[in-house]
Amino acid sequence: MSSKPLDYENLNENVKKTQYAVRGELYLRASELQKEGKKIIFTNVGNPHALGQKPLTFPRQVIALCQAPFLLDDPNVGLIFPADAIAKAKQFLAMTSGGLGAYSDSRGIPGVRKLVAEFIEGRDGYPSDPELIFLTDGASKGVMQILNSVIRDPSDGILVPVPQYPLYSASIQLLGGSLVPYYLEETANWGLDINDLRQSVEQARYKGITVRAMVIINPGNPTGQCLSVANIKQIIQFCHQENLVLLGDEVYQQNIYQDERPFISARKVLFDMGPPISKELQLVSFHTVSKGYWGECGQRGGYFEMTNISPRAVEEIYKIASISLSPNVPGQIFMGLMVNPPKPGDISYDQFVRESKGILESLRKRARIMTDGFNSCRNVVCNFTEGAMYSFPQIRLPPRAIEAAKKLGKVPDVFYCLRLLEATGISTVPGSGFGQKEGVFHLRTTILPAEEDMPAIMDSFKKFNDEFMEQYEDHRGYSRM
Amino acid sequence: MSSKPLDYENLNENVKKTQYAVRGELYLRASELQKEGKKIIFTNVGNPHALGQKPLTFPRQVIALCQAPFLLDDPNVGLIFPADAIAKAKQFLAMTSGGLGAYSDSRGIPGVRKLVAEFIEGRDGYPSDPELIFLTDGASKGVMQILNSVIRDPSDGILVPVPQYPLYSASIQLLGGSLVPYYLEETANWGLDINDLRQSVEQARYKGITVRAMVIINPGNPTGQCLSVANIKQIIQFCHQENLVLLGDEVYQQNIYQDERPFISARKVLFDMGPPISKELQLVSFHTVSKGYWGECGQRGGYFEMTNISPRAVEEIYKIASISLSPNVPGQIFMGLMVNPPKPGDISYDQFVRESKGILESLRKRARIMTDGFNSCRNVVCNFTEGAMYSFPQIRLPPRAIEAAKKLGKVPDVFYCLRLLEATGISTVPGSGFGQKEGVFHLRTTILPAEEDMPAIMDSFKKFNDEFMEQYEDHRGYSRM
Repeated sequence: MSSKPLDYENLNENVKKTQYAVRGELYLRASELQKEGKKIIFTNVGNPHALGQKPLTFPRQVIALCQAPFLLDDPNVGLIFPADAIAKAKQFLAMTSGGLGAYSDSRGIPGVRKLVAEFIEGRDGYPSDPELIFLTDGASKGVMQILNSVIRDPSDGILVPVPQYPLYSASIQLLGGSLVPYYLEETANWGLDINDLRQSVEQARYKGITVRAMVIINPGNPTGQCLSVANIKQIIQFCHQENLVLLGDEVYQQNIYQDERPFISARKVLFDMGPPISKELQLVSFHTVSKGYWGECGQRGGYFEMTNISPRAVEEIYKIASISLSPNVPGQIFMGLMVNPPKPGDISYDQFVRESKGILESLRKRARIMTDGFNSCRNVVCNFTEGAMYSFPQIRLPPRAIEAAKKLGKVPDVFYCLRLLEATGISTVPGSGFGQKEGVFHLRTTILPAEEDMPAIMDSFKKFNDEFMEQYEDHRGYSRM
Repeated sequence: MSSKPLDYENLNENVKKTQYAVRGELYLRASELQKEGKKIIFTNVGNPHALGQKPLTFPRQVIALCQAPFLLDDPNVGLIFPADAIAKAKQFLAMTSGGLGAYSDSRGIPGVRKLVAEFIEGRDGYPSDPELIFLTDGASKGVMQILNSVIRDPSDGILVPVPQYPLYSASIQLLGGSLVPYYLEETANWGLDINDLRQSVEQARYKGITVRAMVIINPGNPTGQCLSVANIKQIIQFCHQENLVLLGDEVYQQNIYQDERPFISARKVLFDMGPPISKELQLVSFHTVSKGYWGECGQRGGYFEMTNISPRAVEEIYKIASISLSPNVPGQIFMGLMVNPPKPGDISYDQFVRESKGILESLRKRARIMTDGFNSCRNVVCNFTEGAMYSFPQIRLPPRAIEAAKKLGKVPDVFYCLRLLEATGISTVPGSGFGQKEGVFHLRTTILPAEEDMPAIMDSFKKFNDEFMEQYEDHRGYSRM
């Protein structure tokens, strides 16, 4: 009998070609070790609650009440829920057509989209149209929807920063398009040089690729940098000149750990530039409830906002969203809560502020502990994590370590990260999963382990690393950039 | 300036080609009319809670507690939550790694997948392996994942029943495959004739299409029939002979409204047939929390189970699932609750049984009222809804009505359904959205309006229909099958 339709050799080639490192070899090995009883510190995914971050109380109270609307009539409800959570739950339930168990419109609940529009307007100072905001099951699903509309065939190219979050490489592979890399400059704190960008596009065109879109991740993942307004302006001008749609992955907009470069959205910079460009450049911006100080990854709530996209194209995107009926409704409510948090004077305001500040301040400290820790290690250099949730240290592997990896058929940074995992239980993602310059090696770790555990984790990392370097360095000294 | 990347003319052709009728022209018009203040009865989507079905109390109590884990330590929690809901919430929280705010494994929470496996074993009498069960954001997402693995290019064909639920046609178009229709026979109560099936495959092959998979929807959507064991056996043999993977959409397995043909899963029939076929046929079965007496559509919980799929292919499907990190966690807990409901002796058992029986018995009555109502109308014939949530009456349109539709550039059944909507507010889906034989017309409506509203709705339908027929029939009599 011939092989069967769902046998490996008969699967869709794009499925097989797709690579996804965040849950790749390292993660699988970590899961195995965990099953065998080893204590694993999962820093491979930005998953704060998995590392002990407590959920914010107020939104969880509201969502619990929305899930159990019969409690709203219970005379005892006030004993365990504050009055503002009860009022908010009623307000959100009134926006649904049938509560959390009913499909919403495929673009999301109109009332929540209106709240998102108000949030964007408040943030940027320019009005936003709820009709151009679609709610999604997390930002990833939104990115995939938009890329699916953009990519027509393998000659369509998408500019993606390298190092990049592999959602982009994986989605582009799966959808059968071409990834066009542009390199971020590590020595310039992961900055972006427009001349390099221009070169990337020219090289791609030379290969017959039509570059159609450019992705920016701001704050950066895995690189943690925050883009300056000047840089965003250049990017916008570049996209306009080259007729690219700009995809702004801004899911870490609340995760900022320095004061020099606050988050400014691509949309605000675009509108500040004024016409004609502000009326012409196509921009899609993404956001989520998974990051920020919420970290509600498991709820899968997100949105994208479209700027300068024609109604006819919006309709097509709506039609495709309709096929899977609606994003999950509880996740939509979380999004509504995130963009419309308790206000001064509300019963829950003080608690909400205390909890959210506590998380952000601790993340700020952890970013510092981690960067300093890495920089204290032999052959490791690391830019400061200005934003997002990651550290992306460069690991200068000695030639003998690279040889040892090759003998085992492993990419050198995979070899290093596997050794780190076995020695310490720290589960990271090798830099090769994000892309890096030839012959340069990194790893990505989140800054999410609990603050009190951080010193011990960094000590354990340093001990492993320095011994590893000791083992593989030839003692004539090693100094390679 | 040339047109922009996200302008309509530059979008992915598969996106543009994709049709999706459930939220198509009729739905859009209904939404407009609603905005204008008209009362609309949305029977276009199987969305029970939107039509007033109350959620089951126990699972909502459990999920509320999972969302608000801090309540578990509140001394007053017992005043508004029963002890078994509290215990169950603790049990599910212990299965997560970080509560509902943490991403789970991309296949879903291991503990929930184990519960699903136990449910399947209890239902079918054959053990099930949790490693071959993936949780999904509703069944639709699972179907799309599997089709994405199967479809390689336009020469790959998928056998789909006609009439069909347009998730299939839309997903196949979007993924660039070919839909190979097989017709269900209305006069045989929407039964399936294996000889017709064989003919469909031969015709497709003649056109150069490699048929790779066959979809069955049991109980049927939109047609409401329940497949007999004999029929499923024939289908399995056919798929085995033709080397097709069988995709069993069994999301309505709890929605059965007659006693002659209880639901039997394709998997049970397969295993009853014994080796070699039971060890060879590739089968993927889909289920959801959106249907049954749960109707928790907005929660987006689902699963698929793979049978006779090799580990290497399972790994590929896992990798693709990883890109969007994890299905929403609350939806996973709903699935865990659905497959593991309260048991006799539990505090909440009686209430749970009362609520679920109430819903199912009422659906059974509504199926009967609706079928009888349609059959009392001029030029309307309708098979009894044996299962699922839909009625799919045939509307025998007079030639003059067909001409009137053509003059307006409308498909005849779209014309009829639009007229019905304007006259009565009843929002249905034209049969052409599901596929039907040439020159035969239908509409699909759910059986979900509240039981007490049903007689008035059917009266209003009858009044519209009979006047419509009166208007367009030539009075020499009309008798076309």
